[in-house]
Amino acid sequence: MTSRSSRKITVIGNGGWGTTLSILLHKKGYEVTLWGADASYVNYLKEKRENVKFLKGIPIPSGICITSDISKKLLDAELIISATPTPYLRSVLMKFKDLLVYRVPIVSVTKGIENNTLLRPSQIIADVVGKQSVSLLLGPSHAEEVARELPTTTVASSQDAGLAQFVQEVFTTDRFRVYTNPDMIGVELGAAMKNVIAIASGICDGLRFGDNSKAALITRGLAEISRLGIIMGAQRSTFAGLTGLGDLITTCISPYGRNRWVGEQIGKGRKLSEILKSMEQIAEGVWTTKSVTALSNRWNVEMPITKEIYNVLFTDKSPLDAVSNLMMRTPKSEVEELI
Amino acid sequence: MTSRSSRKITVIGNGGWGTTLSILLHKKGYEVTLWGADASYVNYLKEKRENVKFLKGIPIPSGICITSDISKKLLDAELIISATPTPYLRSVLMKFKDLLVYRVPIVSVTKGIENNTLLRPSQIIADVVGKQSVSLLLGPSHAEEVARELPTTTVASSQDAGLAQFVQEVFTTDRFRVYTNPDMIGVELGAAMKNVIAIASGICDGLRFGDNSKAALITRGLAEISRLGIIMGAQRSTFAGLTGLGDLITTCISPYGRNRWVGEQIGKGRKLSEILKSMEQIAEGVWTTKSVTALSNRWNVEMPITKEIYNVLFTDKSPLDAVSNLMMRTPKSEVEELI
Repeated sequence: MTSRSSRKITVIGNGGWGTTLSILLHKKGYEVTLWGADASYVNYLKEKRENVKFLKGIPIPSGICITSDISKKLLDAELIISATPTPYLRSVLMKFKDLLVYRVPIVSVTKGIENNTLLRPSQIIADVVGKQSVSLLLGPSHAEEVARELPTTTVASSQDAGLAQFVQEVFTTDRFRVYTNPDMIGVELGAAMKNVIAIASGICDGLRFGDNSKAALITRGLAEISRLGIIMGAQRSTFAGLTGLGDLITTCISPYGRNRWVGEQIGKGRKLSEILKSMEQIAEGVWTTKSVTALSNRWNVEMPITKEIYNVLFTDKSPLDAVSNLMMRTPKSEVEELI
Repeated sequence: MTSRSSRKITVIGNGGWGTTLSILLHKKGYEVTLWGADASYVNYLKEKRENVKFLKGIPIPSGICITSDISKKLLDAELIISATPTPYLRSVLMKFKDLLVYRVPIVSVTKGIENNTLLRPSQIIADVVGKQSVSLLLGPSHAEEVARELPTTTVASSQDAGLAQFVQEVFTTDRFRVYTNPDMIGVELGAAMKNVIAIASGICDGLRFGDNSKAALITRGLAEISRLGIIMGAQRSTFAGLTGLGDLITTCISPYGRNRWVGEQIGKGRKLSEILKSMEQIAEGVWTTKSVTALSNRWNVEMPITKEIYNVLFTDKSPLDAVSNLMMRTPKSEVEELI
């Protein structure tokens, strides 16, 4: 462990992932402040040193400062990590907007696409706080596994190669490897859209359709994600990488996957509103499905899985009919399907 | 169910997959003969009507003829399905060689690459029986799930579009969808090589490395499979399809995966020889690892996962060291990794 006590990092968002990254950086010797919006939950965290809602069983070291205060001091850091779920991101950023007078780089670790504006998290940040330089840290990294120090690989992305390398250096540990990729559009779109396919995958599980079906859905899912992403300016190869295929697989197979779990409950016949009410953590994929459906219409890209999941979530279509439609379409040439 | 009682299909190989396809075709109205090499096990199957070794719990309809006889009548069919594991394929074909006087098309459903010759199953068939036209039926299709009629998608491949369509028509049911793809090299190489990555994936499970690691290995695995395949003449897009990515996912996540299971046992510290002795079914990936290693040397393609798995299987390298090496390499640009 290197001693870097002078180096300050602020994490905005005390969900499972924000907490995990705080612990990782604290162990690397950074002076970490973890900010949460809910003052009473923050007080609870300060006292209990365990994020029972979002990261059960993992102690939060006493050296990590936990706060709900908003001050210039909070933002006077070497790096700010933006770890707020997309639906709350804009409103949280608005609180900080006027205090961000320094050009402190921001790393976005949020996976989603804003409803209505259809902006990616890095674009929301740019929209609200303006000139700050924004980079991404995304990839197949379930918080629970990273917190338990299981080997994990991720991607730092920025158009500024120096910033990507800085992010890579900040986060890399023996068990947490960070690659770089300059394709921010591809990295961020893959990370967001995989949550839609995870819901489909969960529905498969809920219907007990098996791994043959799940593999087919993931394969087709990556094809439709790539189709939209490429038209929006991403590189095809990025979708074959850790933030595309990699994150898609983790999210679709992991028992920790919240979006997969939502799909599973739907497959078992529960109603979306009831499922969401029972969850502490947000299932980004539900809202991302709305945004991706709007993007597929705007860009005129065929996305059969996203379309069926939208219908299941928001128009009460039977999940059995939806997944059966997807699996049982009239066979044609595979080459046509993949373009 | 259509009545096609005049249509004869012979299945060579009474493993789980040969048996499953026999049942599927019988239910479609074909007159199916299932051939097995071991006369005493064939007699057992004829009496019990259940393939207890390879497909437990699935009744074999009385209408399916099961035999170990080799005769012209056996081979006088509309279609022959070659379902023998790669290590035995050549010797089994030799038994039939001189009886195959008709130009009956052969569908190969075997996933492997022959040691020493480094031939794909369709090439072994061509090598032994000569002029018969050969096609493939491959994809993410665990026998147990197909036998239970869970939704499954596969790919029929032939350079002859008419033959691919014929195979598609023969096998397609409501629950078993067949696409076509003319890229035989890509379809057959993907189907074979995924078993090597499945062993790596199983080692991850045995070491309890988690889904972040597994997703990274699958992602990198597909990249190295594609690298070799493209140099050998395959289309890149085929590896993004059902027989590439799709089959890779099923094999790496399914509890039914024999190759994944072998890897898991190795990850837990058992010795390969002891594991293989305990198995009824063959784990093709073990032998495929030898062939793929030889191919990567011949074509001078870097395949880090295959190399580590070879070392674990055949040079007694510690699985923990091997997977740690793979996960913990010094980070670089993701773009370089994926090329």
